[in-house]
Amino acid sequence: MTEQQYGYFDDQHKEYVITSPFTPTPWINYLGNDGFYGLISNTAGGYCFYRDPKFRRLLRYRYNNVPADQGGRYFYLKSADTVWSAAGRPVQTELDHYECRHGLGYSRFIAKKAQIRSELTCFVPLGQTAEVYRLELTNLDAVSRQVSLFSLLEWCLWNAEDDGANFQRNLSTGEVEVDGNVIYHKTEYRERRNHYAFYGVNHPIRGFDTDRDSFLGPYRGFDRPLAVERGQAGNSLAHGWSPVASHHIDLQLQAGQSQTLVFVLGYVELPNDQKWAAPGVINKAPAKDLLTRYDSAQKCQAELDRLQQYWLSQLNKFQIETPDKRFDRSLNIWNQYQNMVTFNLSRSASFYESGIGRGMGFRDSNQDTIGFAHMVPDKVRERILDLSATQKKDGSAYHQYQPLTKKGNANIGGNFNDDPMWMVLSTVNYIKESGDFSILEARVGFDDEPGDFTHFEHLKRAFEHVVNHLGPHGLPLIGRADWNDCLNLNCFSEDPNESYQTTQRGASDVAESLMIAGQFVLYGNEFVALCRHTGRTELAAWAQQQVDNMVEAVNQHGWDGQWFLRAFDARGRKIGSAENDEGKIFIESQGFCVMAGIGLGDGRARQALDAVSERLACEHGIMLQQPAFSGYDKYLGEISSYPPGYKENAGIFCHNNPWIIIGESMLGRGDQAYEYFARISPAFLQEKQRLHKTEPYVYSQMIAGRDAATPGQAKNSWLTGTAAWCFYTASQYLAGIRPDYEGLRIDPCIPARWPGFKAQRTFRQALYEIEVRNPQGLSKGRVELEVDGEAIEGNLIPYARFGGRHRIVATLRTAD
Amino acid sequence: MTEQQYGYFDDQHKEYVITSPFTPTPWINYLGNDGFYGLISNTAGGYCFYRDPKFRRLLRYRYNNVPADQGGRYFYLKSADTVWSAAGRPVQTELDHYECRHGLGYSRFIAKKAQIRSELTCFVPLGQTAEVYRLELTNLDAVSRQVSLFSLLEWCLWNAEDDGANFQRNLSTGEVEVDGNVIYHKTEYRERRNHYAFYGVNHPIRGFDTDRDSFLGPYRGFDRPLAVERGQAGNSLAHGWSPVASHHIDLQLQAGQSQTLVFVLGYVELPNDQKWAAPGVINKAPAKDLLTRYDSAQKCQAELDRLQQYWLSQLNKFQIETPDKRFDRSLNIWNQYQNMVTFNLSRSASFYESGIGRGMGFRDSNQDTIGFAHMVPDKVRERILDLSATQKKDGSAYHQYQPLTKKGNANIGGNFNDDPMWMVLSTVNYIKESGDFSILEARVGFDDEPGDFTHFEHLKRAFEHVVNHLGPHGLPLIGRADWNDCLNLNCFSEDPNESYQTTQRGASDVAESLMIAGQFVLYGNEFVALCRHTGRTELAAWAQQQVDNMVEAVNQHGWDGQWFLRAFDARGRKIGSAENDEGKIFIESQGFCVMAGIGLGDGRARQALDAVSERLACEHGIMLQQPAFSGYDKYLGEISSYPPGYKENAGIFCHNNPWIIIGESMLGRGDQAYEYFARISPAFLQEKQRLHKTEPYVYSQMIAGRDAATPGQAKNSWLTGTAAWCFYTASQYLAGIRPDYEGLRIDPCIPARWPGFKAQRTFRQALYEIEVRNPQGLSKGRVELEVDGEAIEGNLIPYARFGGRHRIVATLRTAD
Repeated sequence: MTEQQYGYFDDQHKEYVITSPFTPTPWINYLGNDGFYGLISNTAGGYCFYRDPKFRRLLRYRYNNVPADQGGRYFYLKSADTVWSAAGRPVQTELDHYECRHGLGYSRFIAKKAQIRSELTCFVPLGQTAEVYRLELTNLDAVSRQVSLFSLLEWCLWNAEDDGANFQRNLSTGEVEVDGNVIYHKTEYRERRNHYAFYGVNHPIRGFDTDRDSFLGPYRGFDRPLAVERGQAGNSLAHGWSPVASHHIDLQLQAGQSQTLVFVLGYVELPNDQKWAAPGVINKAPAKDLLTRYDSAQKCQAELDRLQQYWLSQLNKFQIETPDKRFDRSLNIWNQYQNMVTFNLSRSASFYESGIGRGMGFRDSNQDTIGFAHMVPDKVRERILDLSATQKKDGSAYHQYQPLTKKGNANIGGNFNDDPMWMVLSTVNYIKESGDFSILEARVGFDDEPGDFTHFEHLKRAFEHVVNHLGPHGLPLIGRADWNDCLNLNCFSEDPNESYQTTQRGASDVAESLMIAGQFVLYGNEFVALCRHTGRTELAAWAQQQVDNMVEAVNQHGWDGQWFLRAFDARGRKIGSAENDEGKIFIESQGFCVMAGIGLGDGRARQALDAVSERLACEHGIMLQQPAFSGYDKYLGEISSYPPGYKENAGIFCHNNPWIIIGESMLGRGDQAYEYFARISPAFLQEKQRLHKTEPYVYSQMIAGRDAATPGQAKNSWLTGTAAWCFYTASQYLAGIRPDYEGLRIDPCIPARWPGFKAQRTFRQALYEIEVRNPQGLSKGRVELEVDGEAIEGNLIPYARFGGRHRIVATLRTAD
Repeated sequence: MTEQQYGYFDDQHKEYVITSPFTPTPWINYLGNDGFYGLISNTAGGYCFYRDPKFRRLLRYRYNNVPADQGGRYFYLKSADTVWSAAGRPVQTELDHYECRHGLGYSRFIAKKAQIRSELTCFVPLGQTAEVYRLELTNLDAVSRQVSLFSLLEWCLWNAEDDGANFQRNLSTGEVEVDGNVIYHKTEYRERRNHYAFYGVNHPIRGFDTDRDSFLGPYRGFDRPLAVERGQAGNSLAHGWSPVASHHIDLQLQAGQSQTLVFVLGYVELPNDQKWAAPGVINKAPAKDLLTRYDSAQKCQAELDRLQQYWLSQLNKFQIETPDKRFDRSLNIWNQYQNMVTFNLSRSASFYESGIGRGMGFRDSNQDTIGFAHMVPDKVRERILDLSATQKKDGSAYHQYQPLTKKGNANIGGNFNDDPMWMVLSTVNYIKESGDFSILEARVGFDDEPGDFTHFEHLKRAFEHVVNHLGPHGLPLIGRADWNDCLNLNCFSEDPNESYQTTQRGASDVAESLMIAGQFVLYGNEFVALCRHTGRTELAAWAQQQVDNMVEAVNQHGWDGQWFLRAFDARGRKIGSAENDEGKIFIESQGFCVMAGIGLGDGRARQALDAVSERLACEHGIMLQQPAFSGYDKYLGEISSYPPGYKENAGIFCHNNPWIIIGESMLGRGDQAYEYFARISPAFLQEKQRLHKTEPYVYSQMIAGRDAATPGQAKNSWLTGTAAWCFYTASQYLAGIRPDYEGLRIDPCIPARWPGFKAQRTFRQALYEIEVRNPQGLSKGRVELEVDGEAIEGNLIPYARFGGRHRIVATLRTAD
């Protein structure tokens, strides 16, 4: 029995096509590129914001609502007595045809009802602070028809947290202006805000509404507004309560006639001395300018073309063609697209992150760069230096910083001891991609010691932070937690209203992490290599010694017999050991120790990964640990607070599955690596849409594990480090196209059944057309390299000059 | 033209009867008395909590939603194909009859549809941690009918803030158990919580649902659940996402037959060692005990009777009978009821306060006691000592404290310089009411100096705090703000995301408040009197000198020529002066200076109140200031951030209207005082229900003023100091029945047209039956007093012994 399907990939248009408004959860897309972002569901629900989803939110959205997904860009259509929504909801009228096409930076909604076809295209033009909605209406009937159209947006009163809490104030503050076809939202503009929003249309209107209750009618939902039922707007002016923006337009469409309208939802900031045109009258000039840019269907199309060109040029930096279409569409389109979205929004605003609580994560943002550095390396450089500036002088990091201020967020806490070393990864990956060693000399102060330091100094402090925080076994102290936020070995919480991330008991001198140990060896070796590359030989030697000591400590104390231990707790007891009744084996230390090369020479790496395969892998992916914790243990913390099979308590945390995949690729086990990849990669899961629940075109943070009541059910889609890690893994370790300081390395690890594959890769402004041949049916092998027809030694294509275009043939051969 | 009416008073049953489910805003009631409270709208929407509306919330509620008022105690009824709601919503089916009766501690909903009558009574039994819903169904038809009944509650995951924000976690945590007819909600019980909730019914069920999506169906609202449409529950077990509780019961009712079901939503806390009956199985014994208490209609009725007796005994402590029924019902029923609710919940949970951000206010809670001390003086004593314990050793106060911990809330800030003196008011009023001087000797530490101090010492520090914080004119420094939170003379904010209450710039040595000056004189005199009463003559003399100095400072610097100034700002400029273009006159300083007696002897008090009448009074009440501020002024702060006519920017802040009314009563202008009272008092506003918008049986915080787009529209009902002040004013200054140290003073100030009135008053366990006679048509006069038939000198009835019952006749005479 096949499960119900809700959509499919349209690779030609680089779109995912959703065929039902009733997806298991709202399936969303992101609009915007440069500070102005919108979240848009498959029925046009969602909101947008400028730079900060908490403090500059334009539209009101209701998380966790009933019905789901309330608030968005709504267009009500009415012909005769039939009322429907151009995007399939909120009106519940069944459509004759519905289609949502999530594309790269735009979403398109096609509906047919009552012989009227509508096509709504929503996008943020490049570099613009506006969402544009192009709505084309076509009369499919043989006779002329009248159509009434009502737009509707609901304004958020800018501060999204306050908007949902401080009713005593904000029911009295809402203010609007209406000028012709344009509705201006100016709440708090009278005081300290120097920004307003507007909603305009390039067509005369018959009426408008700005007061929600007037438009909807008492106790009605978005699904049946009174004004639409009545066929007439109320021309209401909002004073407090809930301001909205609705245009009412009546159209007469001849048989077969199409008409296109363009709506613009824009955001304007003005210097204080230019806020007003007259006392109490806002300066509308910038809004009018902006409206003029999109006041015809033609101008709109030109902007859409520009947007598409932008995305094509980004995606073209890496394209692959293998025997597996699913692998290709994943890497070529959706994974890269998700990488950019994740990089831009860094966990701060999704349908699972409300945009209020979270800033930019230090470790998250560093990791996100590894999926994105090949696309816009300049932005990565900027991000790394932003992160660097929030580091403290002892090398430690705030766990998060605020996007508006770029300052570390003291409320969220720090002391996660894996944080610092992620900056080594991001920097090294950036330099290898770009060749830009100058980032090391960039001047960056510390959060608690402003001044003239090099970014290299920051990396050194990061490295030293680990060295200076070793525990009794010579292993790194875990601090508040390591990558696994929920493994809280130093916080013995008994108060259910206490957050594990902010409680003041965050460190001991005892609890140690094998995950950080592996991470230190892996990125410590990278640090050593970087020192050598930049002539810091003395430092390199010292650092090498520290890394060697760590390897020794892992070998002495970190091996449990069949796999790597996970940690020592605050009482010195083993975590992730065969000794434990529950949580005998964890994924993170297996992944990081093997990636670091520990045990590669003596079979322990293979043994550890075999244990993973035997004990942690299930049909939906690799679980975080096993067996699940059956009850709460205050010495373990939040991990044991989840029901078994969910989240960190033996859920499949997709973020760390790639670590095992990279490990497998280092062992040359390409079939196993590929199989793991396929279990969590959305393009491979199309048969499971209903079970999986979340968007089947992007990664989710977590898939419920074997112990759960609902194994295979995913949660927390889009903004997850999984995307960056999966792209990094698949492109650099499976396809094996791996930037290095001196050039591009080709070192694939693929399913043995593949006869080969092709790829194109832009690397430092040169284009490489790569063909990998696998005549012997290998997963991994010695690579014979031919560059522009010429055989070269080794697997490294040397750096090529700007604008070059090179043809590479790489043939896998058995080692002998 | 009469406006649409939505309801009326039923004085006989002490109920307000609402006749439409479509009131302008949800009109609510409160259930519960002792730690467990529910908010319930006129369609049974709302939620309940135990002790803390943020950390112990049982039901999920969505503030600011579309449609309004989503989440509540829902009962779906289905007969043949008709589906409706027992409380008029969320199902939108029009009923043949609808009625909501908000009573004292219960709400009753009567509906008729499809020949089925339902009567739903919701209440919290006295002292219980449960809401009980008694549902009686009657078949009005001449033939037997089948009725399907589906209950529905949605669980909040306890921490209401987290529940609306932390989706990454809480979509994975939800857990339930189902055992027979009882659904247990045990999210986080597996870890640090030692409390769970349950929802049971005293009747076998045909099925149940605990997973919201299974019950409602995809993308459906509460208005049309799929399970009800289908006529069959899904027996779903929630794992994460959104757990709910729904029972499905099918009933066959013969012609004319009634059947009564009892549902109980209960809350259970257990010691850690008694949490579990077996591994993973919660200890259900306390829930079962609790269910047994209400497992029949008879037991329910007995509890309802007990509840009613409780309320009658409370209200009977003050009852009045005047020529104006509106005045009587206000004082006898709704104002006293609102006083208790306000006292219990102190601004923390209403349909305008989300229950998340606010703790118990220091000044608010002190003021609330003055409307409540005559009802349960013991609770007032406890509250005052709780407040006292949060005071700092320098006499200052945290602005709020947390109800669970009773600790001051450092996040909300302090430094509101009027805060300390309110504790003098509450204490003096309590002692006068109860005669309990021992509260002064109660042992209470300071927040920052635990130790053995008397409560009297706290009052002294409060007094000293003002003396130690005087500005250049010898007037009190305003600090962060005084009673008017929004008059921020020391916070020059230009960042719209900054709260005026917490920004770190909260004080200068210049900005002074005339409101605090008047407050200091008024309660300073009370402090002096208290010192004298308790033999502290030396302190009394010193304190009197300070008060005299303050009067002198007000006389010298605080009189603007026709009224009292409001303040000096941080630059030493006048606020609330004829010199100003806007904000020339403010209400607070007129009220407090006149109440303090300043200018009574020389005509300035009269002049000030005449200015109020001329410049601040409008048909809907007395505005806070005039003229309204037309634009933002950072030297004034939040007051100028509101659109004119709303909130502190020239809105009618009902809380301070009584100060003027008391002032007028001191001048003997009873007609004017009564007229002011009638403008804001709900019982007088029944013709304005639609305009007023909020509940027409309780006070709202604010009514929009003359400058607003919607003058007369109210906001922020229920939890406002207005209730306490109005009761205090009407009972002690209009009716003039005023407790004093030595006895009960009778000093009315009434409309001259009243021939008199009757009242009964319980005072220190004695009952006084009072008749006031006004043969000369006076507003105020010399009082001739007859106690139990015997004439006595003066207007003070001496304290009577426990259990006494006394008949008082007080006759108003002209002074000569």
